[in-house]
Parts: sequence; structure tokens; C-alpha cells
Amino acid sequence: MKIDLTKITDPSFLKQLSPKELVELAEQIRSFLIEKISKTGGHLASNLGVVELTLGLHYVFDSPQDTIIFDVSHQVYTHKILTGRADQFNQLRQHGGLSGYACYQESIHDKWESGHAGTSISAMVGYLYANELKNKTGHVVGVVGDASIINGTNMEALNFLGQDKSHRGIIVLNDNNMSISKSVGAFSIFLSKLRGSRLNHRLRKIFDKILPNIIWRMFRRIKRALKAIFQTGNMFEDMGYIYIGPIDGNNIKKVIKTLEMAKRMRGNILLHVITQKGKGYEFAEQDDEGSYHGVPAFDKDSGLELNENGSKITWSEGIANIIEELAEEKDLFVVMPAMLVGGGFLRFQEKYPKRIVDVGIAEEHAAVMSAALALNNVNVFLPLYSTFSQRAYDQILNDIARPNLKVIIGIDRAGFVGEDGSTHQGLYDISMFLSMPNMTVTMPRNLLEAKGILKYAYQQNGPFVIRYLRGVTTIEDTKDVEVIKPSWEQLTNKNGNYIIAYGPIVDQIVKLVEQEKMAVSVINARYINPVDEDLLRTILDSGKALLVYEQTHASGSLYQKILDFMAQNNYTNKIRALNVYNRVIKHGTIKDNMKDAQVAKADIIKALKEL
Amino acid sequence: MKIDLTKITDPSFLKQLSPKELVELAEQIRSFLIEKISKTGGHLASNLGVVELTLGLHYVFDSPQDTIIFDVSHQVYTHKILTGRADQFNQLRQHGGLSGYACYQESIHDKWESGHAGTSISAMVGYLYANELKNKTGHVVGVVGDASIINGTNMEALNFLGQDKSHRGIIVLNDNNMSISKSVGAFSIFLSKLRGSRLNHRLRKIFDKILPNIIWRMFRRIKRALKAIFQTGNMFEDMGYIYIGPIDGNNIKKVIKTLEMAKRMRGNILLHVITQKGKGYEFAEQDDEGSYHGVPAFDKDSGLELNENGSKITWSEGIANIIEELAEEKDLFVVMPAMLVGGGFLRFQEKYPKRIVDVGIAEEHAAVMSAALALNNVNVFLPLYSTFSQRAYDQILNDIARPNLKVIIGIDRAGFVGEDGSTHQGLYDISMFLSMPNMTVTMPRNLLEAKGILKYAYQQNGPFVIRYLRGVTTIEDTKDVEVIKPSWEQLTNKNGNYIIAYGPIVDQIVKLVEQEKMAVSVINARYINPVDEDLLRTILDSGKALLVYEQTHASGSLYQKILDFMAQNNYTNKIRALNVYNRVIKHGTIKDNMKDAQVAKADIIKALKEL
Repeated sequence: MKIDLTKITDPSFLKQLSPKELVELAEQIRSFLIEKISKTGGHLASNLGVVELTLGLHYVFDSPQDTIIFDVSHQVYTHKILTGRADQFNQLRQHGGLSGYACYQESIHDKWESGHAGTSISAMVGYLYANELKNKTGHVVGVVGDASIINGTNMEALNFLGQDKSHRGIIVLNDNNMSISKSVGAFSIFLSKLRGSRLNHRLRKIFDKILPNIIWRMFRRIKRALKAIFQTGNMFEDMGYIYIGPIDGNNIKKVIKTLEMAKRMRGNILLHVITQKGKGYEFAEQDDEGSYHGVPAFDKDSGLELNENGSKITWSEGIANIIEELAEEKDLFVVMPAMLVGGGFLRFQEKYPKRIVDVGIAEEHAAVMSAALALNNVNVFLPLYSTFSQRAYDQILNDIARPNLKVIIGIDRAGFVGEDGSTHQGLYDISMFLSMPNMTVTMPRNLLEAKGILKYAYQQNGPFVIRYLRGVTTIEDTKDVEVIKPSWEQLTNKNGNYIIAYGPIVDQIVKLVEQEKMAVSVINARYINPVDEDLLRTILDSGKALLVYEQTHASGSLYQKILDFMAQNNYTNKIRALNVYNRVIKHGTIKDNMKDAQVAKADIIKALKEL
Repeated sequence: MKIDLTKITDPSFLKQLSPKELVELAEQIRSFLIEKISKTGGHLASNLGVVELTLGLHYVFDSPQDTIIFDVSHQVYTHKILTGRADQFNQLRQHGGLSGYACYQESIHDKWESGHAGTSISAMVGYLYANELKNKTGHVVGVVGDASIINGTNMEALNFLGQDKSHRGIIVLNDNNMSISKSVGAFSIFLSKLRGSRLNHRLRKIFDKILPNIIWRMFRRIKRALKAIFQTGNMFEDMGYIYIGPIDGNNIKKVIKTLEMAKRMRGNILLHVITQKGKGYEFAEQDDEGSYHGVPAFDKDSGLELNENGSKITWSEGIANIIEELAEEKDLFVVMPAMLVGGGFLRFQEKYPKRIVDVGIAEEHAAVMSAALALNNVNVFLPLYSTFSQRAYDQILNDIARPNLKVIIGIDRAGFVGEDGSTHQGLYDISMFLSMPNMTVTMPRNLLEAKGILKYAYQQNGPFVIRYLRGVTTIEDTKDVEVIKPSWEQLTNKNGNYIIAYGPIVDQIVKLVEQEKMAVSVINARYINPVDEDLLRTILDSGKALLVYEQTHASGSLYQKILDFMAQNNYTNKIRALNVYNRVIKHGTIKDNMKDAQVAKADIIKALKEL
């Protein structure tokens, strides 16, 4: 039997399928995913891992009456297929097409669309309380990865739900020993103990034999009694959960049987499911670094990326290389929250294994640890994706910036992120960091400038942000770059109005005004804070108009900072801004993002002409 | 023997004292603390609880070579006495006097001054890594309360340190079953199991007999073996820690003996210490709500607050009363992170026990849970102290504001907080919330206005912030207040320049300009976002100058928003701002804070005159 995936409208059809048909469907979905993701890019390994688990969840529970929540929700592709969206996979993560994450607007089956790790258990608690307040019935199930469950938000919620005897949630711990990069921490070691424990295996065998013959509450008592004799501690049980597992999450029969058991039981449940990352796609199965977590379009047969670009390098890698150069001269230490691969620091780790630590998806811990290192005069580099740096707002403000500690924060994926969409846009970090005391904020336009700025960062004292884009830049020889002190630079002098911008867009703007033969002077505001007051005065004294271009929210932007300077110094030059204002920007290419935000090339030309 | 506490310069003198002398010293310190705190106010219960523990820590470890970190650090009074600061307790929490928390500038013994809960274990990790990188020796000990250890940041770090076999930290879990209000969550239940477990007591007795005769590693093996037979799980051990305890933390001999044991052992240690909150002061011992957590000056003999004020009420209580009124008409649910007492919601809880949940010191979980409730059309009120709302920046931005969910966020202690100082100032929330999509931000000048604004908040859809001060306001009958839609109001019309402000300061400004007989029109900008564009146009069309007064950081302020409006609409009125700019404001009275921030009455008069 072959099902036409694009004809599925609703997961209820699953309940008619036989176990054999479900196994076939899983294989069919897996082929579909490899085929589609190889063309569009997307989250590969995690989605291949949870095919059977997702089938099982929709087989056992009745969505949308029952609530199924996916942590982060990068692993919802099978869920999307089963809820009637298979026909849209050609436009996965493309402008106007299917989101790469759960999406409230796409489906009533998408109950939670956080995009950021660690929120699923809190969301479950919210749903459980809402069901009670609204007199609704329905189970609430959350699927959370082994790397996400240790995130602070989830741990707070795990603690909260465990004591709650008047609500009942089912947490499915999807343990593939690698949610983004390798899992870290005590929790991960504890999980591998559970996975490996012979006692557990033995107990499971006993249970499998006994279970059909006894009632479920009996089962729990027996299990407890057996455990008291045979098993060492289990922190989930200490926290008030009924622990079930570990079970093979790629065995659909077992998944269904266990979920049905969990559904019938009382009390909060933690079901430990082991799935194989990248299952069914050899190259992803063998990857133990996390390179197949999120992928661009690739060649299905070789596993190689399409469109490789010889003279280019990602900004993340470029910055990591500079940090590696600086580490040769300086006592540098890198605190990395989970993004070893995405952040480009694998090579650094190989070269300086004692000078980097991966703390997992734990941005708050990373920031505080960095503060304590800085208190002890260690030169810290703390790379954070812009959107995830939001998680450490309080710690960066209160523990690093307030006491003026020297932590160099690399803000990766600053600005538009393209295909990941609204939950991942790096459009708020400027507002965040400009509102913190003592904070220097910069954005270089190329790697040469990045090196010059980073050299300055390590000379000075106090917190320092260097932002860089998602995407590629030109490889440069950065060996002999000089320090770049806080200053702006004027790139073209056309005796006309001014456009002020920062980052790689500056070079594109220079080209654009040349192409358009516009008499516009382009200013590279590589230091967003402090502003170059001398150059700014010169600009304002000219009496010309200013356009401030930024890929950021309007509030707390450089534009507003310049307005402040003008007001205090009684300048009344005409000034306009191009920025994201208050818009929420969805997925698409970065070009699409720029159009949606009304900061694309055409918007620049229009704004300059209106000045 | 009576020690002159004010003559202590260094904790090393402790090592010469006999056990009996240490007990006497503890009593002497306790009397000193009650005496001093009754006059200045401060954190009473927690400091009375940890006298013996602090003595023990400084007896066993060598500060500052060894590092002692206190979570939050509101409980460091005994530590301050032992490190030479007893003579400054008359100026505790006063301008220029002793900080109520650990303070880098006060002493080399103050290794960590976060002020916010949950950062101590991450800080320990930072110190441990720094010691290794800098080839320093010295133990690293952290003291963390049972309510703080469940905070997300600490949980992330607890997970991280547990797996780290190359570093060794000693976590002292100071369990008084109430760090701010009642502890909540699975962790707290687990702890009480450990406290109550008969097996534990039995094992402790056995250990106490065996211990002197065997080597310490042997002890661990035996303990494990015994546990495997007798004891149920212990999540600390699951996470890789050597669990010791629980011990009586008010028994100085036991504390010293156990700390010395911990000092000699290898591996990361979690030492579970039970202390009595408020020990030695009857009224605080009997308090099980947390009213004696932080206290104003009080009468030592009766336990009653001095300076009670009949016609006044705290803003927190005033807002809680309005929420209670609204709950009579509306299906309201309150998600409260720990601040039941401080936030004024005890009475609400009594009246509507099913409509409020205390989630503990877990702001991130609180925000996500609120988002999920709002997704299910529950009317949520989420009260957060301004400074602690920083913890939930990402969740409020990404999970509430981005998808435009209706969560009403009460920002308590917005603006200056006085005696708690720089770690607690509410000076960043305006910048935070104005940079979030869809967010309405308001600040009422009295409770009547608060009711009108809250009524509007519950009529509209989308995220909504209402800010209110630390301190008191006039009690009002808010029963029949009408809805206040987004608008500003002009309070005085003097045909002169304008001053724009929001919150209770507006009334003070009206009085001030009357006293000074200044021809200034006062605008009440109760809606900070959206601004009242109609009234703003009228103001700007007058051609008069504007002064924008705010108790907030400059970046992302209302002032900058007005500048933006002016620039876009080609207004060139003279405009000045009075705000906190980029200043870090230390402890003192709120008046002191205002002077330090240069936004006091004299500054207003000066600025108005300069216009």
C-alpha cells in the first residue's frame, strides 16, 4: 500500500492502518523527507529520527483535541505531513511557503511555535492549566530533545510540573544523544546510564512479559518495588515523574504500545525514547558533530552541499579564525553554548581543547560563567546567536555590563536570518545592548575590519559586542591588521547627502549609489556605540540630510542615538531612517526578508531620492 | 569572652576560637543583626538563619584565597561582619553606606555580587575554570538557597558542573524551606523527603559512628553500597554530585566537621544544610509567608513596622486589589514568580486559590506558561519586578510579543528601588518592552488611572505592560473607574514650554512648577507606547520647547521615540531629556537615587530654566 502523502488532510486516517502499513508509511515519509530537504535545505537529522515517534503520537492521541507540543519544533516535518501539508514541501522555508518550524497560522495542529529551545514543558503546563480553567479535556504531550531538556526554562518547568498532582502531562524525552551538537552535562551522562543500564534492560524484559496480565496501577507498584531492590536512583522519579523507558523510538509498534500505556496511566509521565539521529540517511547517521542538524540544499547521493563557494567563508568561521589567530598571542578562553558547528569553532576546539568549553543550550549559564572568568582576568570570547543572546539578557546586563567586566560577546546571525524566519531573526540585539551600561557595540563590514575591532576589544576593559551576519564573506588575510579604535569612516565623499550604515551592507550601499550615480556620501558606522562624535559633527555641520540604514528594530537603534545627539547639540538637519521598525519578519531568503522589512535596495534608492 | 565586632578586620581570627567561643560569637552576631536591622531595615530572616553556616565557612576555608560565593547575596551580613565591616552597619543600605548585598568595591572577600537569584553555581564554574587557567589553587564554595537552586540559570550550571570531573566545587544547599516566599516545585518536595527520610537519619547515625575510623574514599563506597540497599534515589547523585546531608546548619560544630570533611573529599559535592529562617527572632521564626524576608525598620520587641501609613498603600498591593476587582468580572488568572508577599498577592490567593499559581523563582517558566495560557484565551496577569523581568526577556519577546498574545504584564518596582541598589534598579524595562513588536507600555500616575488602564488592557488583544513604582500611593476607590484608552492628558495649560512625563512623578512635577511659578504645561504620557500622536502634534505645533522626563535608561526611551516622531514629521522644536542616561545607580533612598541619576527636583528646575 502506498499512500499519496499530498492527499492527507488530517492525522485521523492513521488509526485505520495496520502495524505493517505504519512501518511502510514511515519509510515512505523518510524517503520523502530526504528527497525534499536535499532540494530546499532544512533540519535533516532530527526529522529523520522522529518519523516513527510522530506517527505513534498521532496514532495514539487525537490532535487537535489532544495537544502535541514539540520543543523548538525544528523536528515537526512528519507532523506537517500528517496534518495535511505535504504538498507544500517544495516551498519549505521559502518566502510565502511552509515554515521550517511549527506555525500557528499554518495549522490548528500546531500548538506551540517557539523556535527557541527549552520552552516545551512550560508550554505544556500552560495548556494543562488552560484546559482546567476552560473545562476542556484532552491529553497534553510534549516532545523534548535530550539537549533541550537541560535548558533553564525547561528545568524550571520540569521542577514545577513534577510536584503538580492535579494536572497530568506526558513528556516524551526524545533522546538521540545530540540535539544540535553533542549533548553535554550531567544530565546527558545520566541519560546514557539509563540507556546502558543492564538492569534496565532486564527489567524491561520482565515488564514486557508481565504487562498484558496485570492492571496498570498494579504495574506501577510492582515496578516501584522492583526498583527499590534492583535499580539505583532516577532523578525523574525523584522529581515526581513516572519514568518509563528507555524504549526504541524507531520501533513503531513499541512506540505505540508505550504511548498507549502512558495515556492510560495517572500522574505526570516522563517517557524516555531513544531515536537515531539521521535515521535512514547514511551520511547523517554517521555524523557525530551535528553537521546534519540544519543543512542547506545538498546532493542526495554524495551528501555534499550544492553551491560551494571557493573564495567565501561563513562569517562564523571567519570570526572563529580571527579568534584562533588572537589566541596565539593572548590567553583567550571561549565559552560556547551548543553552537560548536554552527558557530564555526570545531577547528578552534581541536587546536586549543583546553581553551574552549561547550556548555550546551545554556546561554544563561554561559553568560554568568563568562562574567566570573572575566572577574578573574581571563579574556573571554562568548559567541551567541543574536536571537539566542536574548536568553541571557539579564545575565549580560546585570552580571557583565553593570560591573563593567571585559567579556567580548560575538553576536552571530545578527540581522536577517532568512529561512529560519520570525523566531530566529537577529533584530533585537542592538536595542538590547545599547540599553546596557558600559557596553561597546560594533559591526564590521569585512573580516579585516573584524580583526581590527577585535584587537581593540582585547586592549580595552569592559563589555564589548561584535555583531556579524548569517551568511558568507570574502576570505581575507587578517594576520597584519592594525587595531581599529572607536571611529567611523567616510567611504565616499560626494558632497551630497549622507547615508550612515554598518556591517557588510555598507559595501553594497557604496556600489548601489555608484550604479545609480547618486551624489551620496557613505559613512561606515562600524562602532554603533560609542558614536564617532567628531565625524558626526562634521556631517551635521555640512547641513546635508542624513539617512540612517539599519537592519534592526527602531527602538534603541543607532538612528535614535543620532537623533539624541542632534537634539542635545541643536542640529536640525533633515534625517530619515530605514530600519525594521516594529515589523515581524517571516521566513524566506535574506533578500525576501529585506523586502518584507522594507529595507531592500529599492527602499534605499527611494529613501535617498526623497531626502 | 565578648568580641568587639567592629574591631574585626579579617576572618582569620576565627581559627583561634574554641567551639564554645564560636557558639557565643554566633549569639552575639545574631543580637547585633536584630539590633541593626530593626533600625535600618534589611534582609532579616535569611541572615539570622546563616550565622553559624557563615562562621563555619570562614572557619574551615581561607577567604580570599578560597572563594566563597553567596547566591543572590542578601544573606551576607555575617560575612560582612567577619570581613571587617561591622562598624558600617548603621549605614546599611544607605547612600554611601554599606550595600545590602555582596559588593566588589567593598571587599576582596566579596567574590560575586549578582543580587539576582540563581547565578551562584555558574559563577562557581567560572571561578573553577579561572583558577585552572591562572594556575591558582583554592577551594570554590557556593551557598545557594533551596528556592534559588531551581532557577533556570542554576539548573543549567548544576547540570554542567555535575559532569565535570576535572574541577571540584562545593555547593552548600542552604535549605530553610523558604528563600523568599514558600518554596515550590518537585525539588522542594524532594528536599523535604531528604529532610524527613527516616532512612537518612538512620544512615546518618551509622555514618557518624563509622566515620572517624575509616578513610574518606572508603566512606563513599560504603555509603553508596548502603544506599543501593536502603535508600531511594537522590537526584544530586544522579547528576554526578557527592551528596552529604542533611545536617543541622545551626549547629556550628556539625557545620565545621562536615565542611572539613567536604574540603578533604574529591569530586563535586552537594552539602545539604538545614537552617532555620529567622533563627533567634521569634516573630521571624514563626513567619511562614516570607514577610520577614526583606523588612523595613521595625520595632524590635513587637516585630511591628515603624512608620505605618494609614491612607497609603504600596503600589503592589494597590495593583493586586485592582486585579482582584477585575477578577470578579473577568476570568483572570495570575502567574506569580515567587513574589506573593512582595507583589501583594496574598489576599488574592486566599480569595481565588484556583486563579493564581506561584511558580517560584522561575521567571522564564512563568512567561512561557503565560503565553500558553493566552493561546488558550485565558486572561493572564503576570506580575514581575522590573529587574527580574529581565530574566524573561527572550520569552516575553519571542513567545508572547512576537505572536501578539494577550498577556498583561505588571512591572513592579519600575524605576528607582532605593536601598536594594544597582542590582535591583528598574531602569531597563522601558528599553526592553519598547523594542518588542506589538507591545503596549503604560505607567499610571495613581490607582484610579491604573484601573482605567487595566480595564483597557483586558479589552484589547495583545501584550500589555503596566509599570508601577516601588513605594506607596494613596488608597483610592477604584470601583467605578472608566476605561482609559491610549491617550495622554494635559494636566496644566500655562502657554509655556512642555514637560512630558509618566507615573506618579507627574503629580510631583505639577506641584513643583506651581511652587516655582513656572509657565510650564505638564503632559501625563500614561501610554508610553503607543504615543498620543494627536496631542503630540498639538504640542509640537505650538513651537514651544519640550522636556521629556523619565526614570529610565536613555536608549529606547519615550524621549527617543518622540525624537523619532519629530524627525519623521519635520518638527524642529527644541527638546531636552532628563533620564538616567547610561548611569549605574547605587543604593540609598529613592531621593538619593534620583540625585545620583541627575533627575531630582533641582535637575528638573534647572532643565526647565535652560529650555
